[in-house]
Amino acid sequence: MQRYFIDEAIQVEQQVTLTGETAHHMLKVMRMQPGHRVELVTPDEQAFIGELTELDATDKTVTVTVQSPITKSVELPIETTIVCGLSKGDKTDWIVQKGTQLGAHRFIFCNSQFSVARWDDKKQAKKVARLQKIAQEAAEQAHRTHVPTIEWRNSLTAVAQESATIKLVAYEESAKDGEHAQLVQSLQTAQPGDRLLCVFGPEGGVAPKEIEMLAAAGFKMAGLGPRILRAETAPLYLLSAISYVTELATL
Amino acid sequence: MQRYFIDEAIQVEQQVTLTGETAHHMLKVMRMQPGHRVELVTPDEQAFIGELTELDATDKTVTVTVQSPITKSVELPIETTIVCGLSKGDKTDWIVQKGTQLGAHRFIFCNSQFSVARWDDKKQAKKVARLQKIAQEAAEQAHRTHVPTIEWRNSLTAVAQESATIKLVAYEESAKDGEHAQLVQSLQTAQPGDRLLCVFGPEGGVAPKEIEMLAAAGFKMAGLGPRILRAETAPLYLLSAISYVTELATL
Repeated sequence: MQRYFIDEAIQVEQQVTLTGETAHHMLKVMRMQPGHRVELVTPDEQAFIGELTELDATDKTVTVTVQSPITKSVELPIETTIVCGLSKGDKTDWIVQKGTQLGAHRFIFCNSQFSVARWDDKKQAKKVARLQKIAQEAAEQAHRTHVPTIEWRNSLTAVAQESATIKLVAYEESAKDGEHAQLVQSLQTAQPGDRLLCVFGPEGGVAPKEIEMLAAAGFKMAGLGPRILRAETAPLYLLSAISYVTELATL
Repeated sequence: MQRYFIDEAIQVEQQVTLTGETAHHMLKVMRMQPGHRVELVTPDEQAFIGELTELDATDKTVTVTVQSPITKSVELPIETTIVCGLSKGDKTDWIVQKGTQLGAHRFIFCNSQFSVARWDDKKQAKKVARLQKIAQEAAEQAHRTHVPTIEWRNSLTAVAQESATIKLVAYEESAKDGEHAQLVQSLQTAQPGDRLLCVFGPEGGVAPKEIEMLAAAGFKMAGLGPRILRAETAPLYLLSAISYVTELATL
């Protein structure tokens, strides 16, 4: 069933009138008819099933009668922020699209020492708006109730000041014999509601000085297995591992 | 360090002469000089460090002196085959590139009932060759010793006859209270050297008749968390989870 984020609170049996892009998508892209059912998600992240009762192609409005709440929890129990040093090309798009499907709560993009791409203050507003749109579409497709927020920081120094329960940097590490990997240590003690923030370097990685600065700010270095992952793949590994541990293995 | 797959066996202190695409990449793309070090991987999946001792731009040959073996294990302990119903567009490229980084052992692409794209016998040879090249490049970048093989089957009925220790279909499932998810059950009992094969549907999913046929052939339905993953994201979730369980959590 198609899912839409709407900008007002609703309740069961209420009729809600939708306009703008949402109505356009229902009428023109999906060619929905009266009786068609959709999922609506409110700004406070409550999901409902509703039925289309009136469609007005001239006014471009759609009226939906709210039928029942959806109570199934679909958000990662650990609120995960993905911090990425800027990579080349459309990798930011991919990170946001796939990372949203896999449950990221928030994305922070930032200039870093080894970033090839740079965003200046003027460019970043446009980029963030574009990525926010990608996040919303991906959240609708993934049937989430939370749209990840997209943020921008000028450097990793600004990121180091973020507060979180678990602060990690994805980093090549050779785990010693008999010692659990850092990621496993962090996830084994994590509780639902904890906030995890993980920094991922651009293609060239995180610079030694940046690593030093993040370590001083309480970040732990976490390896993600023995293979070299590219900048856009590593965040997906982390999110999948968190889902496996907190959503599948703990049932 | 740059890694290359070569087509002959080598040993320490031997001099090996490289030609063709490998020499071209060293000379023209990487502009390597004598003294530059590279990693070479043989057809029997042994990796070595070597030093460039002679470069001949006219003959387009490079001579490498083999210095030392690399013994670190970089392959997933569970040999994982990703089976994908054909998806639209360049999704197959992405699945192979990212799945190779994450440790897939083999990919099988196949027509399935809900596939929008179709490959006929003529088309498939060209597609498989192209994907095999993507797999090799991704394996080099990920510093793997195994290049995943790319195969083609005409239908999921042919896939059902594959033998494997663990046979799964990625499928929306609502795990019951107090019951471990199927994927967790499968991975908890898996042993190094086991072969896991998992079927992923195209955009429209696996058809009910195909599910029935695979279930009859011993495949188990495995959910991958509560969010709806797209066709190209689900295999990456599986591979990441297998790596986490078998490479990070069991140290």
